[in-house]
Amino acid sequence: MKIELVTIGDELLLGQIVNSNIALIGSRLLKIGLKLSAQSSIPDELTALEAALREALNRSDVVLTTGGLGPTADDKTKDALCSIFECKAQLNQAVLDDLVLRFGQKLSETIRSQAVVPAKAQIIENSVGTAPGFIFGHGRKQMIVLPGPPHELTRMRDKYVLPLLAKRADDGKVFRQKVFRTTGVGESDVDRRMRQLMKSIKSVGYGLMARPHQVDIRLTCVAESAEQANQLLQNAGESVQNEFGNKIFGGDDEKIEAVVGKMLKQRKLTIALAESCTGGLITSRITDIPGSSEYLNGTVVSYTNQWKRQLLDLPEDTLKEHGAVSEESARAMAEGVRRIGASDLGLAVTGIAGPTGGSAEKPVGLVYMALSDRETTIVKKNNFRGDREMVKFRSSQVALDMVRLYLLSL
Amino acid sequence: MKIELVTIGDELLLGQIVNSNIALIGSRLLKIGLKLSAQSSIPDELTALEAALREALNRSDVVLTTGGLGPTADDKTKDALCSIFECKAQLNQAVLDDLVLRFGQKLSETIRSQAVVPAKAQIIENSVGTAPGFIFGHGRKQMIVLPGPPHELTRMRDKYVLPLLAKRADDGKVFRQKVFRTTGVGESDVDRRMRQLMKSIKSVGYGLMARPHQVDIRLTCVAESAEQANQLLQNAGESVQNEFGNKIFGGDDEKIEAVVGKMLKQRKLTIALAESCTGGLITSRITDIPGSSEYLNGTVVSYTNQWKRQLLDLPEDTLKEHGAVSEESARAMAEGVRRIGASDLGLAVTGIAGPTGGSAEKPVGLVYMALSDRETTIVKKNNFRGDREMVKFRSSQVALDMVRLYLLSL
Repeated sequence: MKIELVTIGDELLLGQIVNSNIALIGSRLLKIGLKLSAQSSIPDELTALEAALREALNRSDVVLTTGGLGPTADDKTKDALCSIFECKAQLNQAVLDDLVLRFGQKLSETIRSQAVVPAKAQIIENSVGTAPGFIFGHGRKQMIVLPGPPHELTRMRDKYVLPLLAKRADDGKVFRQKVFRTTGVGESDVDRRMRQLMKSIKSVGYGLMARPHQVDIRLTCVAESAEQANQLLQNAGESVQNEFGNKIFGGDDEKIEAVVGKMLKQRKLTIALAESCTGGLITSRITDIPGSSEYLNGTVVSYTNQWKRQLLDLPEDTLKEHGAVSEESARAMAEGVRRIGASDLGLAVTGIAGPTGGSAEKPVGLVYMALSDRETTIVKKNNFRGDREMVKFRSSQVALDMVRLYLLSL
Repeated sequence: MKIELVTIGDELLLGQIVNSNIALIGSRLLKIGLKLSAQSSIPDELTALEAALREALNRSDVVLTTGGLGPTADDKTKDALCSIFECKAQLNQAVLDDLVLRFGQKLSETIRSQAVVPAKAQIIENSVGTAPGFIFGHGRKQMIVLPGPPHELTRMRDKYVLPLLAKRADDGKVFRQKVFRTTGVGESDVDRRMRQLMKSIKSVGYGLMARPHQVDIRLTCVAESAEQANQLLQNAGESVQNEFGNKIFGGDDEKIEAVVGKMLKQRKLTIALAESCTGGLITSRITDIPGSSEYLNGTVVSYTNQWKRQLLDLPEDTLKEHGAVSEESARAMAEGVRRIGASDLGLAVTGIAGPTGGSAEKPVGLVYMALSDRETTIVKKNNFRGDREMVKFRSSQVALDMVRLYLLSL
């Protein structure tokens, strides 16, 4: 079954917004053993839109679309659909009733217009936004039309679209994948070792995905049955696990901040952070994880020396002698925040994120990180490349991994 | 001139990564008055890739591609290019010399293989990665091939691709756009008012782009000359400015954290933050901006009551009587962090980000924010919808806007 995605909207092509809908659809199809065979983005122009949707319907069994359903004048998707499926737009009483229920009797004209839908459309309920989704049947082919805002389409995807496609998917062949996420090893190195490893492993393919300080290894397998695919991936996965050991921090879509959080929770340990050049990013990543209040006590982001002295107990002498960006200051900050924060662990990061503030001796990208427990403090020196946001991100990635490796060693 | 973008890579369709390259290309083309007419994503499969690139070359004057140039076995773009442009892959000495210069004499086989390129390709230098880019001429048509990693392609885009396309673009018609970013007003409301406004404005179109607590208004104009386009947009822009006043916080790709930073700098004011439910996100956004150390003193992220008492001076009684999520605690946190942090302003955010921790009285999404200066403290109560990350983000957006509106009122 060929599935393709058409994302609709001028803003996507003009680069006003990053198109996150491709990943939101693609990653979840994968979970039910399906994959997108293609994706395209089309502007909000009736002619271009109609042509692109017709072509997609020609090529693929299922065409998913997102976007262009807003109540505003620049959205043209409904017009294109009426033309393709040869029907009129008409008021749908059930959609209108639902809008009145959620937004009150006095609907504005714009919101009311959302209840005017292509006559041949089967409605997909949108419980958080105003634009309903649509399903059109076209022989064995289907077009599934969703609104663009991610928080709307993800609910509709999970509740209606995935169950529908899972039912259609049963055509004998099964596709499965397994992802291993590594950090602390370069892409070429991973590739060389994977190439060697896979020579002896049949029926399983692999792909790599490099991110800043992270390489994901994706094993893929097409087989006759789910059992067979799972077994093949299981065996190949064990070889990968043996090869990369603790460089692997997680699987599938696990984030390192979630892995670290789970480990802290299991070990009943709390942590406090002193962030300087990362400016709160590590803490923000940690607190993205539900339940992080169980192990994170708090963070001091210190951008001035007065803060470092007063809130982190960093000795004046250390600052004067070695500077804020130094092994000694990192160490004192980690120990200080652990003590002040009444935590089991203290993590500190201090460095030069740039673009200014660097020198020959202490260049942009120089970052010290320290991790302190009741007994000892370890310090790591890094030289990161990239712009300010990249230095912040790389630092956060390596600092989180420092905590992970420490916890593994307990 | 029709320009289209083909992004290459299994990981894009499998949803392993968000495709940020579309926005990285689209947004910068716009700055030189060009726009993408289409975009598609293709897996790393030789047949699909070759077909898609041939079609694109048929349709468009310029085909830009990103991805599939890595040194790893799963990348097929070079093979597809050799086939399309009927040439062999051969060692390019200049590319090899450059790799040796940057990575040393003892190149690994994988890195050395990056110097093997399609014979007909004109090389685009990649100063940070191992994969060079290519330009192929094909009559009046061009194909421009870039590697996938954003930090590599953005440099090549700015140094080689944009100048090249700017030269080709001169075909008489000029496209210009102007963006106004608003916050604090809903999409339907913006649309209703824009529709009314634009009735009297000729030759200028508009589009809206809704994000969490932000609606961007994009004015677009195609004209005979740059002067004419700029004049039309200028006039239309003034009407938009009058209509939305201080709801507009910036233009083009200005971020609210950059706007707030600029205002603090101009007014020579410093700020300190106490973040609870936003978990460092506001600070991380502020510190993404180069030079933020001039106005940000520091932040306390307090996830426990002990931290709130000890580091923010939040009185025990306030906590006991009203709880950590309350108007009173927000107020005391803002005043506390301002005082302790020796800053002109103190901003505090406390709330329930969810998914757990809510109650009938204090539901998930309830967020108090307070802003304190030497004389007074203002407090704002919000009820946000969405999941944990969304509540964090919306809170950060509204809190930053609270600072902006305060600074405007000085």
